Amino acid sequence: MTLLSKLVSNQSTNGLDAKRVIVLTSSVASLVIWVLNMITSGTKSRQILTIDGIGYTDKTNTKTQMESLTTVIKNLKTILRRILGPKEYTYVLGIAASLVVRTMCDLWLIQNGTQIEAAIITANVSKLKSNLLDFLISMPILAFVNNSLKYCINQLRLGLRYRLSHMLYHKYTTGLTYYRLNVLDNQCQNIDQLMTNDVEKFCNTIVDVYSNVSKPILDILILVQRLTTTYTGISTPASMIGYLIIAGTILTNSRRPMTKMTVTETQLEGELRYVHNKIIANCEEIAFYQGNVRERVTLINALTRLTNHLSNVSIFKFNIEFLDNIVAKYLATICGYLSLSIPFLTARYSNNSQAFRLETYYKSGRMMVKLAESIGRLVMAGRDYTRLAAYTTRVYQLINNIEHIPNNTLSIIGDKLSKPLIAGSGVMQICDPNNSMICFTDVPLCTPNGEVLVTSIDFTLKIGQNVIITGPNGCGKSSLFRLLGGLWPLFGGKLVKPPNNRLFYIPQRPYMTIGTFRDQVIYPDSTQDMKEKGVNDNHLLQFLKIVQIEYLLERESWDSVHDWQEVLSGGEKQRIALSRLLYHKPLFAILDECTSAVSIDVEQNIYDYLLNSVQCSLLSVTHRVKQLQQFHHFILEFDGFGQINYRPLVDEDSVLL
Amino acid sequence: MTLLSKLVSNQSTNGLDAKRVIVLTSSVASLVIWVLNMITSGTKSRQILTIDGIGYTDKTNTKTQMESLTTVIKNLKTILRRILGPKEYTYVLGIAASLVVRTMCDLWLIQNGTQIEAAIITANVSKLKSNLLDFLISMPILAFVNNSLKYCINQLRLGLRYRLSHMLYHKYTTGLTYYRLNVLDNQCQNIDQLMTNDVEKFCNTIVDVYSNVSKPILDILILVQRLTTTYTGISTPASMIGYLIIAGTILTNSRRPMTKMTVTETQLEGELRYVHNKIIANCEEIAFYQGNVRERVTLINALTRLTNHLSNVSIFKFNIEFLDNIVAKYLATICGYLSLSIPFLTARYSNNSQAFRLETYYKSGRMMVKLAESIGRLVMAGRDYTRLAAYTTRVYQLINNIEHIPNNTLSIIGDKLSKPLIAGSGVMQICDPNNSMICFTDVPLCTPNGEVLVTSIDFTLKIGQNVIITGPNGCGKSSLFRLLGGLWPLFGGKLVKPPNNRLFYIPQRPYMTIGTFRDQVIYPDSTQDMKEKGVNDNHLLQFLKIVQIEYLLERESWDSVHDWQEVLSGGEKQRIALSRLLYHKPLFAILDECTSAVSIDVEQNIYDYLLNSVQCSLLSVTHRVKQLQQFHHFILEFDGFGQINYRPLVDEDSVLL
Repeated sequence: MTLLSKLVSNQSTNGLDAKRVIVLTSSVASLVIWVLNMITSGTKSRQILTIDGIGYTDKTNTKTQMESLTTVIKNLKTILRRILGPKEYTYVLGIAASLVVRTMCDLWLIQNGTQIEAAIITANVSKLKSNLLDFLISMPILAFVNNSLKYCINQLRLGLRYRLSHMLYHKYTTGLTYYRLNVLDNQCQNIDQLMTNDVEKFCNTIVDVYSNVSKPILDILILVQRLTTTYTGISTPASMIGYLIIAGTILTNSRRPMTKMTVTETQLEGELRYVHNKIIANCEEIAFYQGNVRERVTLINALTRLTNHLSNVSIFKFNIEFLDNIVAKYLATICGYLSLSIPFLTARYSNNSQAFRLETYYKSGRMMVKLAESIGRLVMAGRDYTRLAAYTTRVYQLINNIEHIPNNTLSIIGDKLSKPLIAGSGVMQICDPNNSMICFTDVPLCTPNGEVLVTSIDFTLKIGQNVIITGPNGCGKSSLFRLLGGLWPLFGGKLVKPPNNRLFYIPQRPYMTIGTFRDQVIYPDSTQDMKEKGVNDNHLLQFLKIVQIEYLLERESWDSVHDWQEVLSGGEKQRIALSRLLYHKPLFAILDECTSAVSIDVEQNIYDYLLNSVQCSLLSVTHRVKQLQQFHHFILEFDGFGQINYRPLVDEDSVLL
Repeated sequence: MTLLSKLVSNQSTNGLDAKRVIVLTSSVASLVIWVLNMITSGTKSRQILTIDGIGYTDKTNTKTQMESLTTVIKNLKTILRRILGPKEYTYVLGIAASLVVRTMCDLWLIQNGTQIEAAIITANVSKLKSNLLDFLISMPILAFVNNSLKYCINQLRLGLRYRLSHMLYHKYTTGLTYYRLNVLDNQCQNIDQLMTNDVEKFCNTIVDVYSNVSKPILDILILVQRLTTTYTGISTPASMIGYLIIAGTILTNSRRPMTKMTVTETQLEGELRYVHNKIIANCEEIAFYQGNVRERVTLINALTRLTNHLSNVSIFKFNIEFLDNIVAKYLATICGYLSLSIPFLTARYSNNSQAFRLETYYKSGRMMVKLAESIGRLVMAGRDYTRLAAYTTRVYQLINNIEHIPNNTLSIIGDKLSKPLIAGSGVMQICDPNNSMICFTDVPLCTPNGEVLVTSIDFTLKIGQNVIITGPNGCGKSSLFRLLGGLWPLFGGKLVKPPNNRLFYIPQRPYMTIGTFRDQVIYPDSTQDMKEKGVNDNHLLQFLKIVQIEYLLERESWDSVHDWQEVLSGGEKQRIALSRLLYHKPLFAILDECTSAVSIDVEQNIYDYLLNSVQCSLLSVTHRVKQLQQFHHFILEFDGFGQINYRPLVDEDSVLL
């Protein structure tokens, strides 16, 4: 404190050298601390990478490479071309207009302020009153202009976010894109994070960059014009701008590592979130296992990784901003003083009175302060650029992943086989609606990443024929339907099948959507679709009666909204899924262990109804062949060693099994 | 533009009245627009509430009431008392110290700047050089002080976040808290959002408020002291501070609705996230149903709700900040000019030369500008308060929910019954380890919200006895184990059971944890725990061989880390869960349909091993009584109408069923 009060009180002239020595010492000390910090932060960040208690899927080492400036601009252009609409352009122009008007207002404020001050100094009461009155009545304009700018910025951010999200959501829910991204590709981790947080941050950053760059540029243009024509001449602003270029280059380069750090930060935040979601989704299982301590370790591990990283980032920021301050703020100020002093030290004003020189200096001085501020702000915009680059890369990759079907990632498998299998090389043919059937001809059953489950599938199922599908688990029963539903690519052979909307699949754990109770039964139709099909709530009630869950309507109405996945029991969900089958009346229905949580009498009821009243072929996946074989004509058995056996069921089979 | 250039160029003295008319007109226009905006924004926000395409669980209408100032401060104190450690106090003091030193540095900069300017005006080259040199060598100190402040702020935020998260995670994973919060309570929605985003924002806000409030207060104290002793006397700062109190009251009140808006914003962001997570978790089911269009509607609905709300917020902000600008910025400036003019207009400086008055004005003027800025900043801190209040309320409620077991939410059920059932009124007794048994005596089976599934359960199972549990779905089979595991409260009767760690539960869809392959088998133990139990990897391999998944070790090592929930098939997960049973060697094991995805021969193998080699009682939940009854001694049948039937299994039963 004594040191600082000495620094501040500049009165003592005899202690000048002593003071300077103290300041110099402190400065050197500050610099030494900074340099040490730079060195230790380097080693620290290297250490952090090895901190790891429990093993972790390392998602951080992908896609963290820096993109070049031209790539970023190209990607940015591609994104913006898609999401800028007329409304957004209006806001872009609105921001530009607000900026111009605001600079004008600032200049007027300087002028008005100088006159008020002159009036105070000369004790000119009437001039003071008149100028204060001017100020008073201008206040609403000034406030309006300031907030119009903020309003336009907010609306532009929001507009971009809405359009970009809308575009992404549309593409995400087109065809099977969401399935491919979440299941088949490994490139997109944490899609929810990408589609919500990252999109928001991208939009905020792009608008920030636009306003942070255009405002100082506009200010500089206006101020330079005013300064050169009125006061100091061209040399002052010119030297300031020269400084800008040098400083900008240095600072932008020093900020390079920030992009990578931002990417890592987002990923670590996503991981912490993922751990949370996993616990929420599985809390009952964890409770039974008493896995709380184990989960605590995982949670705190993820938290520690994140906070360690953030701590490193804050050390890095300290170092970078130390440099920023010196280069963009203090050296810029010195540069400003020096260039401002040129006309005063040269012959230009030497003949004028001191009073004139003082007034000139203060008028131009305030503009110079504004100019220096603007230049500093422009230099600082480099820090936004690194953020922008990071988010642009992420959003661009997301759009790319959503749009391009990566056929090349589905590899060719042929090392161990006689003929190579190529993803998508099979033929899929939609059958004639009058003669519906499912016909596999020499189709290999392969997972998308090339594991062969069954070397060749050959069977034909005509409408009206029912088949039981059985076999040990992991043998490919569910995968067969992934082929049939078009979720997985065909690696060869020929598949004839009805169109997807005449093929219905009921999984073991049926999916309940967000919406009303009616929406659960008619999913994926909307109420509109239902009406167009000529179905009403009474029809739906009949379906519920068949699957014996009409009692649900005692406590719920058709329009009740709940989190149905949580509210309904496993068996209720399976039966709602079966009522969906009754509603949609498909030609072929795949029942994938979908009666496992339904009692046996209900199960028999449903099969009876399906066989007798609905014109629909059933493909039942089950281990309980005995109980269900009475309802079926064929059996498809997976032996678990890559072979299948398709044969008709005869009554004697019950003895064989 | 012409209007504005007129505004800016104040030269024309004859057009003074015309100019003032234009300004006045624009100002009135601005005010009119503002008032209209205020009115329309009110109606708009009312309209928005009715926009709703698809029904939605409305989570927004809870807990949005404003908390009073005293409550917020009390809650804040409670939270801070728990999370402030010595390290955090160091950073708090570091921020205070940095703030003081920074104000000192600012004052020195003003002094140095004035001297540099004086040197320029008087063309005093040596003085200019000397002062610039001072500035140059002080730069590192200035930069260091500035960034120390930022560094301390960042570290304090991070420290608070880590400690608060750590505390929350610890409590969350203590006992069954995570289960209660996610399943039993309905008070906490989106726990992941609360535990990550909200905690982060709370910590950022509290530190922001601290620095935003303490910095201007410190500045004001230092500046007032300096101004009163040196230049303008006490009246100037006093009138400024008087203004502060009035303006602060107005603005804080006008910002009230922001708290509610922030709460709504967070909830809508959480909902959007929830919709995304649901799609990710169920993408295969959705793909089979071709539910993409339905999901798109849900997604875009959630997005629209959010952006509409944000758009409303930005209109509200426009209005509020219009008022802010006028009150806290422009009126404060006018107030500053007026109070600054007092000593000049009164007799105090009237005898001094104009040069002296000018110099005095500029020295004190700069400090006055700083003072006005500081006061404005303090007034603006009110906006942080509303945010802080919102986040404090949320975090406080979260802590409360985590800590207090809400016994009162578990209602008394007695309307339809002869004797009332009170949650927690049953007696749970842990049995003697040497004589382990499970004994239900007159225990009603009720869900935590009071639905009675079975009126009375009575049975005793001794160690070594196996029981099949069967019945239609939804009848309470899984709920029985929730009672047994202590997940649900007892509503009456007496339950004798072994300690939880000797009771093992295997659900149908076993949970795979984040970690290595070994972690999956020994879950929830850690590798450390395993070693302490004297088990090594060879023992684990034996367990894998029994459940026939030793082949997994061909492609994975014990230390491989994957997202196991995704990598393993349903049957592999069930078999890993069975291997957990072999590792933990419990006294009683509940097999809840846990072999549904395991082929029959493997199932038989496992039962054989469990019966012959492990001293363990099995409670098997299954529909396949026939196939499994050979391994069991008793059968517990739920009739689905609130009654159970417990009897020994004899061989003839196979005929009866």
